[in-house]
Amino acid sequence: MTLTLTPLSGISLIGQGDDLVQILLASLGTSGIQLQDGDILALAQKIVSKAEGRMVNLATVEPGEQALELAARAEKDPRLVELMLRESKEVLRVRAGAIIVEHRLGFVCANAGIDHSNVAGSGNAKEEYVLLLPENPDRSAAEIRTGIRSRIGIEPGVMIIDSHGRAWRNGTVGVAIGFNGIPGIVDLRGQPDLFGYTLRITQVGAADELAAAASLVMGQAAEGTPAVHARGFPYPLRTGSFRELLRPKDQDLFR
Amino acid sequence: MTLTLTPLSGISLIGQGDDLVQILLASLGTSGIQLQDGDILALAQKIVSKAEGRMVNLATVEPGEQALELAARAEKDPRLVELMLRESKEVLRVRAGAIIVEHRLGFVCANAGIDHSNVAGSGNAKEEYVLLLPENPDRSAAEIRTGIRSRIGIEPGVMIIDSHGRAWRNGTVGVAIGFNGIPGIVDLRGQPDLFGYTLRITQVGAADELAAAASLVMGQAAEGTPAVHARGFPYPLRTGSFRELLRPKDQDLFR
Repeated sequence: MTLTLTPLSGISLIGQGDDLVQILLASLGTSGIQLQDGDILALAQKIVSKAEGRMVNLATVEPGEQALELAARAEKDPRLVELMLRESKEVLRVRAGAIIVEHRLGFVCANAGIDHSNVAGSGNAKEEYVLLLPENPDRSAAEIRTGIRSRIGIEPGVMIIDSHGRAWRNGTVGVAIGFNGIPGIVDLRGQPDLFGYTLRITQVGAADELAAAASLVMGQAAEGTPAVHARGFPYPLRTGSFRELLRPKDQDLFR
Repeated sequence: MTLTLTPLSGISLIGQGDDLVQILLASLGTSGIQLQDGDILALAQKIVSKAEGRMVNLATVEPGEQALELAARAEKDPRLVELMLRESKEVLRVRAGAIIVEHRLGFVCANAGIDHSNVAGSGNAKEEYVLLLPENPDRSAAEIRTGIRSRIGIEPGVMIIDSHGRAWRNGTVGVAIGFNGIPGIVDLRGQPDLFGYTLRITQVGAADELAAAASLVMGQAAEGTPAVHARGFPYPLRTGSFRELLRPKDQDLFR
């Protein structure tokens, strides 16, 4: 089956309290897409975070001692680093320009996923605002999914994605930071392969593969779009959680 | 623009010396796809390796001392471990069931990318065969690309993909191990974002995002297909190389 990924058009800037369900349904209409069972909507973290009011005015943040010390090593704004610490369980690596943490949600990422690049505030102070990740992205996805079902009777999978750097490889790729109605891991162990052997390396990070595909279609720059419609996901759908994708620390050879 | 990924049908088991260009063109026909400029073909590593005769009969491999020692720690066949060592620059981690190496091609992966799961040999000895990665996947991709152009006058991007495990996250995802006619990294630094700010985290691993999407469509199991046609890749095409995606060891915080 063909997998199609279509960027949704007509989504304007999102603000706190905006009704994402309504905005997505309108955008699907503008894009000429009739939602079907089995479809998936992938949303950029930014629009979910903004709708949930996760912007923070840096002028309100008082950096503590640890933040001041880390900020000097990382060459970053101490107030921003203070927020990174509040959003993290553990700091894993620090170098000029990058602080790699275990986020409170459990995944490893740079700068605790805090976005400073395209968050608008108001007036002259707009550069002082940054955007935290949603408080509970699985829950956010579930709420949007339920909201869509309650309005149109169709229940798509909903996924929230972000771009993460990786060990060993250059470049960021889209990853799933929360979802509902999609499997995180698809376990193919025990299934026969093309030759009738039993498959061995067969825990597939299917949600992350879809997140990477959606990220590719979203793009990152001015002409980018913060939502993508996917049709043709090849594995059975189920409730799912991004936590399936988190490798426990004691099983991680590269922490 | 919509990105579509379509599994190619009608590709039977590949053997050494098979003409992949001919097989792909026939499969595109069977699948009802008329190749266009800008299209990309993603191929599973296995079919390229098999066509290139990269199968090794384990009975012909004599494990050395290091292989015997490592095999005991990893609980693996010493002959297989000997091949992993020959295919690697450095062993990074070892535990029961997994040896993580820097492959001679420069990327970090488990078991040097050697595939033991669905390689067929002949007769009763078939389980003794394993499959190494292509010798030079960028070159393999370039040859297939040139071969297609010489037959039909259209020159698609060609990408060879494999499934890799990752630090920190469960599940394998598709990654690009060689390609031609596709950018590895897309550098968006300096471009304005949605708010007119300058983008910061903006080296996108575009080839890996496409590889993940193709891997999702290929699947892994019996009903899987080893080739996928992609249309609608959103970034400008260029020659490219998988080496763009390799982070130099001295810049890697997680080696």
